[in-house]
Amino acid sequence: MGFLGIDIGGTSIKAGIVSREGRVLAKSQIPTAKEAGVAGVLDRVTKLVDALRSQAGPDGLPLAAAGVGVPGSVEVDRGLVRLAPNLGWRDVPLREKLQDLLKVPVIVDNDAHMAALGEMWQGAGRGYRDILMITLGTGIGSALILNGAVHRGVFGYGAEMGHVKVLKDGPLCRCGGRGCLETLASATAMVSLAGCELERGYPSLLSGRTRLEAREIVEGAAKGDVLSREVLNAAAHYLGTALANAALLVGPAVIIIGGGVAQAGDVVLTPIREAFAEALGAWQVNPVPILAAQLGNDAGFIGAAYSALHPPGA
Amino acid sequence: MGFLGIDIGGTSIKAGIVSREGRVLAKSQIPTAKEAGVAGVLDRVTKLVDALRSQAGPDGLPLAAAGVGVPGSVEVDRGLVRLAPNLGWRDVPLREKLQDLLKVPVIVDNDAHMAALGEMWQGAGRGYRDILMITLGTGIGSALILNGAVHRGVFGYGAEMGHVKVLKDGPLCRCGGRGCLETLASATAMVSLAGCELERGYPSLLSGRTRLEAREIVEGAAKGDVLSREVLNAAAHYLGTALANAALLVGPAVIIIGGGVAQAGDVVLTPIREAFAEALGAWQVNPVPILAAQLGNDAGFIGAAYSALHPPGA
Repeated sequence: MGFLGIDIGGTSIKAGIVSREGRVLAKSQIPTAKEAGVAGVLDRVTKLVDALRSQAGPDGLPLAAAGVGVPGSVEVDRGLVRLAPNLGWRDVPLREKLQDLLKVPVIVDNDAHMAALGEMWQGAGRGYRDILMITLGTGIGSALILNGAVHRGVFGYGAEMGHVKVLKDGPLCRCGGRGCLETLASATAMVSLAGCELERGYPSLLSGRTRLEAREIVEGAAKGDVLSREVLNAAAHYLGTALANAALLVGPAVIIIGGGVAQAGDVVLTPIREAFAEALGAWQVNPVPILAAQLGNDAGFIGAAYSALHPPGA
Repeated sequence: MGFLGIDIGGTSIKAGIVSREGRVLAKSQIPTAKEAGVAGVLDRVTKLVDALRSQAGPDGLPLAAAGVGVPGSVEVDRGLVRLAPNLGWRDVPLREKLQDLLKVPVIVDNDAHMAALGEMWQGAGRGYRDILMITLGTGIGSALILNGAVHRGVFGYGAEMGHVKVLKDGPLCRCGGRGCLETLASATAMVSLAGCELERGYPSLLSGRTRLEAREIVEGAAKGDVLSREVLNAAAHYLGTALANAALLVGPAVIIIGGGVAQAGDVVLTPIREAFAEALGAWQVNPVPILAAQLGNDAGFIGAAYSALHPPGA
């Protein structure tokens, strides 16, 4: 018996069949083809699941249930995708549609929630039940897991740490607010800050680079490039302080940092850990590990499979 | 059958006997006499409880259990007061001592936690199960209640919103940190800011006042005094933003503001609500009521009685 996990992203759909013990029995991906609308995406999902079924072997079949992560806000109890801007979806009854297609019970949730559940089950969060995960990318995604379950709060969307205000009158965010954490500490924010400094003629290994990527700033910092280090430290200051403020409120047992940038390890994590410790000061009674996510792009479908195995509210 | 609630403060001990339905059957208070040490305070508690027993009437007796709030950090499962600076206590096995004295099961917890439970049971938080409460006083106390129970987190002390960092390189806090919320928005912080402005000769109704109290600033603001309003708005900005950031993380169903200052009502609450709404922006899916606490100084013992009736972890 296997559990199907599906991670629908703006660019590609990733999916896998996972055993009850969390072993990935089959995995695959396919471009999302979001231009073809909901029906087009569901066609792709069907293709992907057919391919997975043929790979899964006897341990993975039949499928017992499925979980699906989508990049947007979801009414989990109704299985309704309220708004997923990157897919162009609004009010899509995804659970209903997928249950018709797949003939198994389906859980739908936000993709950041699914990734955090994946890391808790099989990644950096193993052994922990109270986890704050943030993902550094174009924006900053986040999820709060308390006592092994996603905490959703009164707004229903769970944690949105990317939009905590960390700088009065700071940069304008795409959410309409000013000084949101993601305007100062996302991968995009780092690229933008480095770009400004380069334009001003700040000497750097990165000079002359066009279409800079956050990965290059991290590599620059590892090589001792002063500009790269300063950009990274500025982001780490805001991030570490926001994480310390979150820890003062909820005291997570572990903090997990996801996204390509965090894969670089200590060059990124050390300044975040330092800023966190400095902001918490005497209030840090026990060490709170700040760890890089381990499952990369697989976290979403593995967590979705976990969610199928342990449905929220069950 | 009654439930005994005791609130041990630095100045006075307040206690009451409360029915299973939350009705206060008897209440009283006595100076703490903390100079006489733990034994002296326990003597006072014994006196107070004897007086209450004689007032309680047949509905309140016998006592079924007792709860005690103390101003400090508590290991709740062991009933141990680790550190209560205002009492001069360190590592006091208060549950054991009180169980010997009172001959009933005793729960010990932090006083801010007890006050929040009291407001949930019989005050501004009635009908809510997810509550963020902050108390504006010399410092800023706070408690987070999730699903009807105090959330304690990995550090064990629960929420410490008074020490979230809200201003880089801000004022030095007694905790050793800089820019903690309580250095900018506690009653003490308001008095200190008003004092500075008065010394600089800022014209105000408060000019010439010695030993200013926060209450006078609130009264001044109600009368339209510009200085008073500016001081209040500055505090409300930091408070509202910190509350919005907390809401983005945990999404409480209601926020309760305690402490003498909040009793003034809308003159204090309106600027906090405005700053909260502005900082949350598009992320406020549902309105989150920001309410003044209702039980005043009784919240602590009422919550302690609730805690005796519903022991944590039971």
